[in-house]
This record gives sequence, C-alpha cells and structure tokens, in this order.
Amino acid sequence: MLSGPSGSGKSTVISALMRRRGDIRFSVSATTRAPRPGEVDGVNYFFRTHEEFARMIEADAFLEHAEYVGNCYGTPAAPVEESLNAGYHVLLDIEVQGAEQVLQRRPDAVSVFLCPPSMAELERRLRGRGTDAEEKILGRLATARREYGRAKDYAYIVVNDDADTAAAELDAIITAELCRSEKRMKAIMEGDRPI
Amino acid sequence: MLSGPSGSGKSTVISALMRRRGDIRFSVSATTRAPRPGEVDGVNYFFRTHEEFARMIEADAFLEHAEYVGNCYGTPAAPVEESLNAGYHVLLDIEVQGAEQVLQRRPDAVSVFLCPPSMAELERRLRGRGTDAEEKILGRLATARREYGRAKDYAYIVVNDDADTAAAELDAIITAELCRSEKRMKAIMEGDRPI
Repeated sequence: MLSGPSGSGKSTVISALMRRRGDIRFSVSATTRAPRPGEVDGVNYFFRTHEEFARMIEADAFLEHAEYVGNCYGTPAAPVEESLNAGYHVLLDIEVQGAEQVLQRRPDAVSVFLCPPSMAELERRLRGRGTDAEEKILGRLATARREYGRAKDYAYIVVNDDADTAAAELDAIITAELCRSEKRMKAIMEGDRPI
Repeated sequence: MLSGPSGSGKSTVISALMRRRGDIRFSVSATTRAPRPGEVDGVNYFFRTHEEFARMIEADAFLEHAEYVGNCYGTPAAPVEESLNAGYHVLLDIEVQGAEQVLQRRPDAVSVFLCPPSMAELERRLRGRGTDAEEKILGRLATARREYGRAKDYAYIVVNDDADTAAAELDAIITAELCRSEKRMKAIMEGDRPI
C-alpha cells in the first residue's frame, strides 16, 4: 500500500517500480464518479453506479472504501485475492484512512508513505505544474502537512528525491518483506521449503 | 547480524554482499584462541590473552561474548560504534546466543538467519567438502537442526539457494531497514530531512 500527498510524485515512482519488477499487479479501484475522457473501465477504474457500489459494500466486497466530494471510491477485494493467489504482489495506491481499513482485514499488508524531500520542494513541484490556482496550491500544502503527521503510522517512509531511487527502495522493501521470518516460516511450514 | 549454521554458505554470501555495497564494515571479533597460520591480528581477529579478554569483560567493552571449546570470543563495542558514527553499516557474523546479547544492548540491530535450501542440500555441502569425518558431519547436521529451531526468533530468514541472490536479499534488507518509519522519523527529527 502506497500513500503520499499530492506532489509526492507517486505515479512516476509507481511506473518506475512496475518497470523494475514483473511480479506486481496494480489494484484498480472502483468508483461512482463518471469516467473522464480517455478513462477505460477496468483499467483506470471500475466505474460503478451508486446502487452497484452500495450492493458491493453490503456484500463486504471491499478491502476499504470511502466517500470523497460526493463520490465513492473503494478497493474490490476479489481481484486482489486473485492476484495474490496467482503469486503476484498487489500494489494499492491508497489514502491514509484506506490503508488503516486494509490493515484491519489484511494485517500482512505492508504500508509505505511516500514523501517529497521537503515542504519547500513540494511547494516548488505544485507551483511548477503551472495549472493550479493559488488557493488550490495552499490547500494542497495544508493537506500535505496534515498527511505528513500520519507518516509515522506507516511501516516504511520513502523520500522521493529521485523517482528511480525511490522505486529501488520500494523494490527493496518488497524483497525484504518476503524475507521476514514470520512470512518465511509460514512458507517453510506450508511446504515451499523442505527445512 | 548474520547467523547461519556451518554449511549455510555464510562467508561466500558475506563476500558477495560486501562487493554489492561500499557502506558496510565487517565487525572483527576478539578471541583468546591462538592465531592460525596466515591469520592477522586486527584483520581476522583481535587476538587477546585470557587476562586481556577478562579485563575487557570487566570494562563492559563487548556487545556480546561467549566461551566455545575453552576459548573466548566477543564483539568489541568500540569499533562498532566508531563505524556507525562514521556512517557505515556494521555486519556481525554471530552465533544465536550472541545475536540475543547484542539485541539487549542495541535493540536497533537487525538479525538475519541464513539457511541452506534444505537439510539434504546442507548434508550434500558438508560431505562435498570431503574434509570432515563422518562423526563430525553428523554432529554438524544435529547442530544445524537445533539452530534452525531458532530461525523464527530472527527478524529475517534468507535461504541460500544461490550466493548472489542471497546477497541481493541481504542488500534489500539493509535498504528496507533504512526506510523503516521509526528510523526515518528519527532522521527527520534529527534534521537530516527538512520535513
């Protein structure tokens, strides 16, 4: 599970990570918001009606879900389980509250908080886009400051000075987590290993 | 801290790891046993008399120490602290009991258990050396079985199918440990990071 405020460079780091490892699948979220031009159902999001979304909540079909500006977003559990069973690692791009919900259901999930090198650098990046109004930028900086306060609740913190270095650190975290003794002992006990 | 029974291939993996990373220093142990031909004081071991060793224990100068077949072995704390202060990671080749002692003094130490892919493979390796008597091989296998029982007490388990892969996993564990949020938050608080 990867969380990071706007401007942390999350999507670039995720792309770099996916290029490094072939054993990762990206979790596609479900949402009730309308598709934007070019967005494809099942690729960018699973686009669902409010009624369909409500039925999925009823059926306990989400690892986590939340409402945001009038629309619902959630991580469907079934595709995640399928990918895990097929031997893949599953990457969730997720908000702080979502990460907490997932950990309730999947205590073996690993949480990583991605942050830019500094607030000054974050501000530079947000302004550098040149697309957002001053008010929006200040709002994002305030949100970022609040979100940083939650970084310590994550298992890992990766600082994104450079996307390739950050991707290498995420790669190392996945490899190291597979070596955690409780996970390795489980693999050994389940007969993956003859010792 | 790396532990592994005889035949786990520890020294090969350590060499491969040291080639991968330039930021590791290997901890040289102190011992009361006599140097073997070619062994150099301060390189292979710090060779000390029983009296010198006893004074070091008295002065609380060891991270851990133990007696083994009439000789004393220990990890001097001062060189470890010096290397850490100079920004290096310190690698300790250490027995199960030693690792426990170090964790008492340095709870931030990271323990890794190295094991061969299977008991059958371990036996093959021990016999493949062609140097040991049957009795000695059986003794080593019994010790290995007992030591494997302790693997779960380590933070990580690395299976040495292949030395380069095992070294890559150790490398990843070091990188990932540096991203652990409690360590990163400490670095941030100490001013390494401006956030």
